[in-house]
Parts: sequence; structure tokens; C-alpha cells
Amino acid sequence: MLVAVLGGGQLGRMLGLAGIPLGLRSRFLDPSPDAPARAVGELVVGAFDDPDALEEVARGADVVTYEFENVPAASARALAGRAPVLPPPEALEAAQDRLAEKRLFERCGIPVAPYVPVDREEDLPGAIEALGLPAVLKARRLGYDGKGQAVVRSAQDAGPAWAAVGAAPSILEALVPFERELSVLAVRGRDGEVRVYPVVENVHRGGVLRVSRAPAPDLPEGLGEAASAYVRRALEALGYVGVLAIELFQAGGELLANEMAPRVHNSGHWTIEGAATSQFENHLRAILGLPLGAAEARGQAAMVNLIGRLPDPSRLLAVPGAHLHVYGKSPRPGRKLGHVTVLAPDRETLEERLAEVLRAVGEAGS
Amino acid sequence: MLVAVLGGGQLGRMLGLAGIPLGLRSRFLDPSPDAPARAVGELVVGAFDDPDALEEVARGADVVTYEFENVPAASARALAGRAPVLPPPEALEAAQDRLAEKRLFERCGIPVAPYVPVDREEDLPGAIEALGLPAVLKARRLGYDGKGQAVVRSAQDAGPAWAAVGAAPSILEALVPFERELSVLAVRGRDGEVRVYPVVENVHRGGVLRVSRAPAPDLPEGLGEAASAYVRRALEALGYVGVLAIELFQAGGELLANEMAPRVHNSGHWTIEGAATSQFENHLRAILGLPLGAAEARGQAAMVNLIGRLPDPSRLLAVPGAHLHVYGKSPRPGRKLGHVTVLAPDRETLEERLAEVLRAVGEAGS
Repeated sequence: MLVAVLGGGQLGRMLGLAGIPLGLRSRFLDPSPDAPARAVGELVVGAFDDPDALEEVARGADVVTYEFENVPAASARALAGRAPVLPPPEALEAAQDRLAEKRLFERCGIPVAPYVPVDREEDLPGAIEALGLPAVLKARRLGYDGKGQAVVRSAQDAGPAWAAVGAAPSILEALVPFERELSVLAVRGRDGEVRVYPVVENVHRGGVLRVSRAPAPDLPEGLGEAASAYVRRALEALGYVGVLAIELFQAGGELLANEMAPRVHNSGHWTIEGAATSQFENHLRAILGLPLGAAEARGQAAMVNLIGRLPDPSRLLAVPGAHLHVYGKSPRPGRKLGHVTVLAPDRETLEERLAEVLRAVGEAGS
Repeated sequence: MLVAVLGGGQLGRMLGLAGIPLGLRSRFLDPSPDAPARAVGELVVGAFDDPDALEEVARGADVVTYEFENVPAASARALAGRAPVLPPPEALEAAQDRLAEKRLFERCGIPVAPYVPVDREEDLPGAIEALGLPAVLKARRLGYDGKGQAVVRSAQDAGPAWAAVGAAPSILEALVPFERELSVLAVRGRDGEVRVYPVVENVHRGGVLRVSRAPAPDLPEGLGEAASAYVRRALEALGYVGVLAIELFQAGGELLANEMAPRVHNSGHWTIEGAATSQFENHLRAILGLPLGAAEARGQAAMVNLIGRLPDPSRLLAVPGAHLHVYGKSPRPGRKLGHVTVLAPDRETLEERLAEVLRAVGEAGS
């Protein structure tokens, strides 16, 4: 069986790794000849909107999937005639447009922070009026890791904010104070079977995920069930197949959906060692129509992204329960070069081991 | 870092898979252009005694290891000038000669079944006299999966047995009645650190491993400690670095060492999902001088070899806790094509799930 993957980054690399034991071959499309996934399959170097490259990556594939949510939806749709494209391109489209995404969440009864669409600069004063301040202006498209966003604290911020989002159709969203960021990942099979992973706590810095803890510690009663219900509804609404991630805010005892990613997700890397079945294996099982694996946690896990430089592996691997994942990328400031997952039987031990990992990584803390 | 591996079978494939997250590249030497390891690294096609092929596989390697114990020891030694060859070639030599192996075990105080060396056919009557019958005549070299062995039940069997072992230097070993077959795997780092995996129960059929259960159920008190002590002594005696497997018989409340394998081992495949650190990752950590990972079991595991044909993956993966490992080989009777590991929180559940796996595999039982 051949799986074509649009995107050849670390997510593609880990999908390819999970596919090898299942006897799968992977072929990736990526603009970079150094794409991390080259180590685990065939790499087609080309743009995501190049018809020849798309044709080449999908040739003979049993299924087409993606590991990058900014693949043009038109490219995904164009391939749908050749092989099943899963998750469905509709999910890609919804995730690429913050307004469509918000409306999907609302349609599914998933709470979101209050927002107002802002199509033109002239809409902004009215939106500020309607929503109150502070708020955050977010471009509807190509928002990624905090880019394309600007906080609006006063009416004077409106003009610069509009410029910061590229003077493009946006939404203005209330800046809701939240306790912490969470995420929920689930996988849905071709037959509609769903498995939901435990809710994860995520710590970001500079808009980039630094640390995840799974299962999320001290989750207030009912929130795990709520997150599970939300992601199930989104999966159903989209007729989804594969892994879906929804990022959430825990705010005032309830959950607000922030955004979704129609793919395997950084906050699910802990599942490789920390869950009964990894998100990568379950994504492949789902899109190939195979039975899904259990999604429960095996003890406590924390994941630390390795950003900008790789620490000494000897120090990392000396931490009990630590596992290193290197992506084969050349170092560059702000670049995700790998991650470490550390496991422990209980939370106290987990925090000790996590602190050791963070020391080895040279981070002050999380 | 580049790891050169002599042999490109499924063990090489799983070593290569474990190396990718660690950021390693692998290069394999194998006589077959279809070697399973080709999916996870570079493949040099050549004989294990071809100096040019050996030169090519080791070029620029940081370490040389092997995944096949019948690599000529001379080949391993020849490469020792270019890069560390680990485990040490001495271990390969001991494992390739049943007499040297027995003597190593004895030197380490590891009990073995009574035996007598048989260098020539004329030695056989005296050996039978000394040992009693029944006994088994085993060629000293190239014994593999029950080949090169012949049971001697009466003096009349002596001639045919000598022919069956290829009229080659052999040992005659008492056919000790045993309760079951076990194995113990351990890993030793460059700095002498040792981690011992739990003892495994192995069920063979036709001389080929069918099912392993880990940790071995109902292990009599003291036997786990004995196995651990034995493998530690063998590691020390050999100045070993990497994973070493010792196959054992449980006989009359004690352990007898049968043979050893100076490499990752089929009875350790369960460690991929079932132990804190897989045998493959720990072998790589060891030979690269990295800290070793914990070797404890994560719950209960069983492994079933997939021999001759691959069952429907949908049936296998429908079993809770089951993970499939396919080696990318073309089917052939008697050939190991893959394995399934099934995990469970307790032994009763494990046996239920194992029975389901065996039904899917089409095996009557184990």
C-alpha cells in the first residue's frame, strides 16, 4: 500500500515512520529537497500547487493525506479523483479560514470566544464597538503560530492592527482571559469509529508550543467529557477520517475552542510512547480503513519541543523515561528541530523528570 | 551519526527504524537487494566476506554492528580498524561455536546441560557412553533454528546423526527434559552500565519461535534473579557492548543456558511497545555510548511471529492492544514475514487477546 502525503516535514516523517511497521510505503510532496520525511520514503520536490508534482506524488497511491494545513484546498480537491483524499478537503478548507472554522464550531455547539467578522478596514470601528476591548484581530487565512494577529487595546490600535494582518479579511475576537491552553485530539475511521485521546495541557512561548503534559493535570470535572463531545461533533460534522486536533482555552471553568488542525498535531507527539496507539499510527489506520487502536494514556507523559538548537543527547537520554525524536533539520533560530517525550508512572515523578529535561534543553522552565 | 549494520534483515530494519528518531543514519550490508532494511537506510548489496562490500558499508561509519550472528568473525575483525565494532567480535566468535559458547557459560558459572565434545566420528561411542542417552548431537558451527542437529536415542543412531550434522566437529548434549524455554536479554553500555529485560517465555514449533510472553508468566522464585545474574556475567566476561540474548531451559526448578545470540533477538520484539525502552533503541544507545534506557515491562505483552503468510491486517488490528510489524519480505513457507505484539494490563486479558491474535493468524494455539 502506498500513502501519498502532501508535506514532508516532521509530521510527515513521523507518519512515515509509523507506516513502515504496517508495511506501508510513503511518498511525500514538499518544496524542500531537505524535507525531514525524505528519511522514511520517497520525496517529490515541488510546490503544493504544481499540477505535475501533485500528479507525481499521487501516482498509484492508495490514499492521499496531508501533514500541513496550508496545502491549497484546490490541490487536495484536484487529487480526489485519483484516490481517496483524507481527511476530506472540506476540513482543510474550514481550518484555513478562521471565520469558516468559528462557524463550524458554532454549528457543532462548541463554545468559542466572542468575535465579529471584519472584511474591510471600515468594519473595524463597529467591530470594536460591538465586542469591546481588548481584542485580537486575526487574519482569516494563513494564520500560523501567532503570525497574522494583532492585539487591539485601544481604538488607536485599529489602523496598525489592520496593517499587521495584511489588510486582509479578518475576525476580531474578544481577548478572553484564560487559565491555560489545552488541546484534544481524536481519530475517526472510515467506518465512523472514533477514539479520543486524553486532553493535553500546552504551554506556548512566543506563539510556539514548548511543553505539553498528557493527560492534562488537574482537569476540572466535566471538561474532559466536554472536550471529547466537542471533537466528536466536529468529526461527525465534517465526515472526517483521520486525526483531528482542536486547540482549546480553559477559561472560567469552561472550554473555548481556539482553532483546529485537520492533521496529526504537535500536541499529540507524546502519544508515540505515552498512548496505547500513537496519533501517527491511528491516522494511518483511519485513512486506510483499518480498525483504530486504543487512545488511552499509558501513565503520565510530557513533551518538550527542541527549538533552534539540539541539546546534548547524552544529557537528555540520561533522564529516566526520556525518548528523543530528532527531525533531521538544520538548526535555525525558532525552528522545531525535534522533541523529547518523558514518561513517568505518576505526576510528581513526571514533573521531576520534566524539570531535568528542561535543564538539559537549557530552558528556564515552563 | 552513521551506523553500519552487517545484515539487512528484519532485525536491521527495526534497528534502522529505532535509529531515525535518534537522528541516526543506517547503512546495511546484505547479500539480497530485497533486504527488509532497505526501507530505513542505505543498502550495500554484497556478501558478508566481500572486502569491497565491507569497505563500502563501513565507509565513514561511526560504529559498526551486526544483526546476524553468522557474519564471519573475520569480517567483523577486519572492520575493527576503521570504526568500533560492537558487540565485540569475540562475542560473535563465541556464539558461532557451540563448544566455545558452552565453555564461556561454564566460565561464567552459568549452568548448561551436560555435554561432551565430539571432534571425530570415532569420538561418538565414547561420548554416548559418558553422557547416556537420549542425547542430541549438534554441529559446533552454523547451527540455526534447529538445523545441524540430530537426536540420538540408541547407539544405532550414531552414524546417521554424524551424517546429519555434516560430519563436522560437534558436541553431544544430554537431552534434558525441560518445562519450557525462556530467554533473557540485557544491554550493556560502553561505560559498563547494564539493563536487564524481564525474562521471556518462548514457545517454539519446528525449531522456530512462534510465541513469546513477557514477562514470563509464573516464573518460580529466584529464577528471574538467576537469569539476570547469568546474563550480567556473560556481558562482563565478553566486555560486551549492545544487546545480548541468552536462551534458557527451565528444567527441574533451575535454568540451563542453551545458546546465546550476540544481537537483538526475536524474543525481544515485544519490547518495542511492551518495555520502557525497546531492545533496538537500547542497542543503538549502547553502541553509540549514549545512556541506556530503562528495561522494565509496561504491563503484559505477547508476541506472535507471522510465518509463511501475512494474515488480514484488519483482523489483527481489531484485537485491542495489538500492534503489527511487517518486514517487507515476499511470502515463502517457513519465512518470518512479520510479528504482532499484543499488550494487556493483566495476564488474563493478555491470554484472551493472544487467543484472538492466534485465531486471526490461523494458528490452532500455542
